[in-house]
Amino acid sequence: MEIVVPILTPFNPDGSVNKEALRTHASNLLQKGVDLIFVNGTTGLGPALSKEEKKENLKALADFADRIIFQVGELNIDNVMELVKFSSDYGIKAIASYSPYYFPRLPEKWLISYFKRLVEISPHPVYLYNYPLATGYDISPKLLSKFNLELAGVKDTNQDLAHSLEYKSAFPKMNVYNGSDTLAFYSLLTLDGTVASMANCLPTLFVEMKNSIVRGDLKRGMVYQRLISSVVDIARKYGQLSALYVLTETTQGYSLGGPRGPIFPLEEEERNQLKREIELFLKSLGVLN
Amino acid sequence: MEIVVPILTPFNPDGSVNKEALRTHASNLLQKGVDLIFVNGTTGLGPALSKEEKKENLKALADFADRIIFQVGELNIDNVMELVKFSSDYGIKAIASYSPYYFPRLPEKWLISYFKRLVEISPHPVYLYNYPLATGYDISPKLLSKFNLELAGVKDTNQDLAHSLEYKSAFPKMNVYNGSDTLAFYSLLTLDGTVASMANCLPTLFVEMKNSIVRGDLKRGMVYQRLISSVVDIARKYGQLSALYVLTETTQGYSLGGPRGPIFPLEEEERNQLKREIELFLKSLGVLN
Amino acid sequence: MEIVVPILTPFNPDGSVNKEALRTHASNLLQKGVDLIFVNGTTGLGPALSKEEKKENLKALADFADRIIFQVGELNIDNVMELVKFSSDYGIKAIASYSPYYFPRLPEKWLISYFKRLVEISPHPVYLYNYPLATGYDISPKLLSKFNLELAGVKDTNQDLAHSLEYKSAFPKMNVYNGSDTLAFYSLLTLDGTVASMANCLPTLFVEMKNSIVRGDLKRGMVYQRLISSVVDIARKYGQLSALYVLTETTQGYSLGGPRGPIFPLEEEERNQLKREIELFLKSLGVLN
Amino acid sequence: MEIVVPILTPFNPDGSVNKEALRTHASNLLQKGVDLIFVNGTTGLGPALSKEEKKENLKALADFADRIIFQVGELNIDNVMELVKFSSDYGIKAIASYSPYYFPRLPEKWLISYFKRLVEISPHPVYLYNYPLATGYDISPKLLSKFNLELAGVKDTNQDLAHSLEYKSAFPKMNVYNGSDTLAFYSLLTLDGTVASMANCLPTLFVEMKNSIVRGDLKRGMVYQRLISSVVDIARKYGQLSALYVLTETTQGYSLGGPRGPIFPLEEEERNQLKREIELFLKSLGVLN
Repeated sequence: MEIVVPILTPFNPDGSVNKEALRTHASNLLQKGVDLIFVNGTTGLGPALSKEEKKENLKALADFADRIIFQVGELNIDNVMELVKFSSDYGIKAIASYSPYYFPRLPEKWLISYFKRLVEISPHPVYLYNYPLATGYDISPKLLSKFNLELAGVKDTNQDLAHSLEYKSAFPKMNVYNGSDTLAFYSLLTLDGTVASMANCLPTLFVEMKNSIVRGDLKRGMVYQRLISSVVDIARKYGQLSALYVLTETTQGYSLGGPRGPIFPLEEEERNQLKREIELFLKSLGVLN
Repeated sequence: MEIVVPILTPFNPDGSVNKEALRTHASNLLQKGVDLIFVNGTTGLGPALSKEEKKENLKALADFADRIIFQVGELNIDNVMELVKFSSDYGIKAIASYSPYYFPRLPEKWLISYFKRLVEISPHPVYLYNYPLATGYDISPKLLSKFNLELAGVKDTNQDLAHSLEYKSAFPKMNVYNGSDTLAFYSLLTLDGTVASMANCLPTLFVEMKNSIVRGDLKRGMVYQRLISSVVDIARKYGQLSALYVLTETTQGYSLGGPRGPIFPLEEEERNQLKREIELFLKSLGVLN
Repeated sequence: MEIVVPILTPFNPDGSVNKEALRTHASNLLQKGVDLIFVNGTTGLGPALSKEEKKENLKALADFADRIIFQVGELNIDNVMELVKFSSDYGIKAIASYSPYYFPRLPEKWLISYFKRLVEISPHPVYLYNYPLATGYDISPKLLSKFNLELAGVKDTNQDLAHSLEYKSAFPKMNVYNGSDTLAFYSLLTLDGTVASMANCLPTLFVEMKNSIVRGDLKRGMVYQRLISSVVDIARKYGQLSALYVLTETTQGYSLGGPRGPIFPLEEEERNQLKREIELFLKSLGVLN
Repeated sequence: MEIVVPILTPFNPDGSVNKEALRTHASNLLQKGVDLIFVNGTTGLGPALSKEEKKENLKALADFADRIIFQVGELNIDNVMELVKFSSDYGIKAIASYSPYYFPRLPEKWLISYFKRLVEISPHPVYLYNYPLATGYDISPKLLSKFNLELAGVKDTNQDLAHSLEYKSAFPKMNVYNGSDTLAFYSLLTLDGTVASMANCLPTLFVEMKNSIVRGDLKRGMVYQRLISSVVDIARKYGQLSALYVLTETTQGYSLGGPRGPIFPLEEEERNQLKREIELFLKSLGVLN
């Protein structure tokens, strides 16, 4: 039962990645009890990072390599292969990739070929990152079965928990994480864990939720889930990807800079409003102190 | 009334762009009567090209600059700005960009900010490339109006022709092209033209269709449309993006290499089957000889 | 090239159908040049009418039987069969039916069986009323071909005109009408006509649009299309189904009562606002006088 | 923590409801430990039943009135009101209704008005039956809050469990049931229960699942969930609505006749194949003996 955080990528004002801030953030999250770090995910603006930036993110987190899932997906398979090879110098837990995206009507067999090539070349276990809402493709358990493709794990970002469960039924040895913040409780309880972007700013809550489940105190676990879901609701009003930078700064006490356009940072006024809203909310729950 | 071709990007076996083939192809299409060339579009695998590759495509086609619409979209706005600046050395007709993609739930105002920045910096007219099925966002006429954003043109890749018409109603001076092959006849007839991927392999048919419309022979125009739609149907069975390379080779008599993974080239057997199918179809219609 | 109006069903304050008003309306529309009347369609609240009410609508319009397409669809096939038999006493042009609706995941063959039974029993030609947005099912040309089901006609309510064209390509003898108000011009120009709910309140505009096309004056035809599309835009702000009653009253000078809950009539203030808005719009265009 | 079964409506060969079979089935389910019966739901072909048939279903089950939720939805609000009044003679637990369906683009306030009228007139608590996939409308907790409409309960047929949870967060006193068979375990565990069509044919499994949860044996509960999900998978291959009649006959030992067109009964060969498949599956699990 693992808490996996798809880590934010902090950018400097000039648009370059702030590796020091990335390291600080990862170290803090692991220290607070998060189990694994998912690098270059959607929350980390993976599809907006160049091949070189993806590499540097891994390099920056080399000290925590055994806790890292390294996302390598791109629309240029040569680059993807290069990233996979690059990862062989690091003792990471797994590589992961979303499917091709943007292009509509890709034949199923191209999607499968993509993942088969990853499996052939990767020195590490290969995890599927399934995110139909973003990519337009559902690399479902049925599709994997149809093409006899067995993968080591899956991050299924999907509001349908039954869909995530199906991976486990079809491939009992597969490591299955649902990737929705609002289903984290259930994913911890009945799958192998959760990949939760909110763990960037609320790591302690996730750890408490997990501990509640371990103790068998499901009611308390559900209280944490509701709290987390409420913060998701607040973040979405501002644009979740950018709000997460502000929320993390507010709750963790260090700056992560901001995102990079076209994921635009919140404007000053929005930042302040969000900070006030979240501080009020968390104080009302006694979480901040 | 213009025929715009979103030009295929030919790749060498090593994954690099084959600039010579790109030039040959562009030259041939223009000679056959195509009016404009849309560079780095979806058919050209734009989202799978690096910033450098996008630049080189423009450089390779510099001789035809006045016939070129240069697509600059990326998920890194610094790169996009660099591409726009790069274009200032070329006397192109316009730059264009699709909206941000992949990331779900981006606030409307970020989408608009993206295009506003293009307008601010671009030395050329700015065209919207609206493709909701690929990007997840509809930069609709209503959205543009809401934010008072007037653009010089739009390629609306959308099966709803009424949607394309709405741009014209809201912004009478806007250059409006529908981007669907199966609606090209209508787009030529009542908008400013069509952006049609099938014009890569069937340029003469598109020119004949346009000429029929100019002559007022709509019935004959519709015959060409049906023919084109039938070829789309055939291409989709194989994976349209890759099939277009084979179809163009078959009808135009020169090689364009192939696409680049994860847009995988057709396998030998598929190539042959597609060639046979298309030759049979075109011969039955007396087009090939 | 026919203009087909999916006629509004006028209701009395007690919820019963106002047959006299229905007759008056049909007579007026035909006199103004509308070609055919589609009874019990979506605009006529067909799915909200009982079997008996559907019969009475046909009875009330018996004088115009040869101009009538009689929609018989329901979720109880015994009722549907009864309606088909009932129609044998009337010399109507065709019966029509939407597919089953509401129930998700019906197997294709049940959908086809439904229409096959209509064909077996009907004394009149059978038209498909394809409306995927309402029913959840696309009875596409490909589906009909797959099951070897040839129908006499189709009303394809679909923003994708290419989809409507495909029926004609697959079944050249099929009578094909697109059912979208915003595509009526194109449907008149290149298919067998249009089924247009706005012809309830703007019959003369549709007739003028058709005449423009017949004369070859496409530019003028497009002017009418834009006008019609603008009225659709206005109507949708109020709830199109109910707004049509008010718009028809305003332009045609007689009352049609109102719809029946849960298609709620506009409130007094909304009615007045809509009337003012439409009168202003039409006067500005010189249509009303 | 309640198991609610949306009861099948058994039809005679002549298309009339077989009330005796309905009673037998209800009695058996309740005896086996199902808590409540949802009458005229989707599984019961509610939208395909006439107003009179809906009444007769309630009449037939009068002996179990206190265990009944009576679904009254129709597209004619006068009929709906009549059904609500009819229910006042029965000591039922609640009435319920899906929202209006079929008609696209109904304004939010019409949807809310519909439910407000139910609340005004109903002598019983009013439950929302939210089923966006079937109706096209999501009567979400946010929508209810926006219009200040508080309802006594909700059956949320929705693969997104977080959506169901939101009702509970917004309206803590609301009775919340998720309506998906594949999420029943979670719905029992953290909401007020489940509405599960599969409880028609697998009542004992649902009861065992519930008992496992009560005992705190979640692992065993999940085993039952997977079993149930597998049966859903099998049923869907045949057309779930019709397959349920066959499955119930097979597991419960009495006949329920069949559905009514256009929900067509399985053909002889399909029935036999399904029976074999399910018997094999259940025997392999030791459930049938």
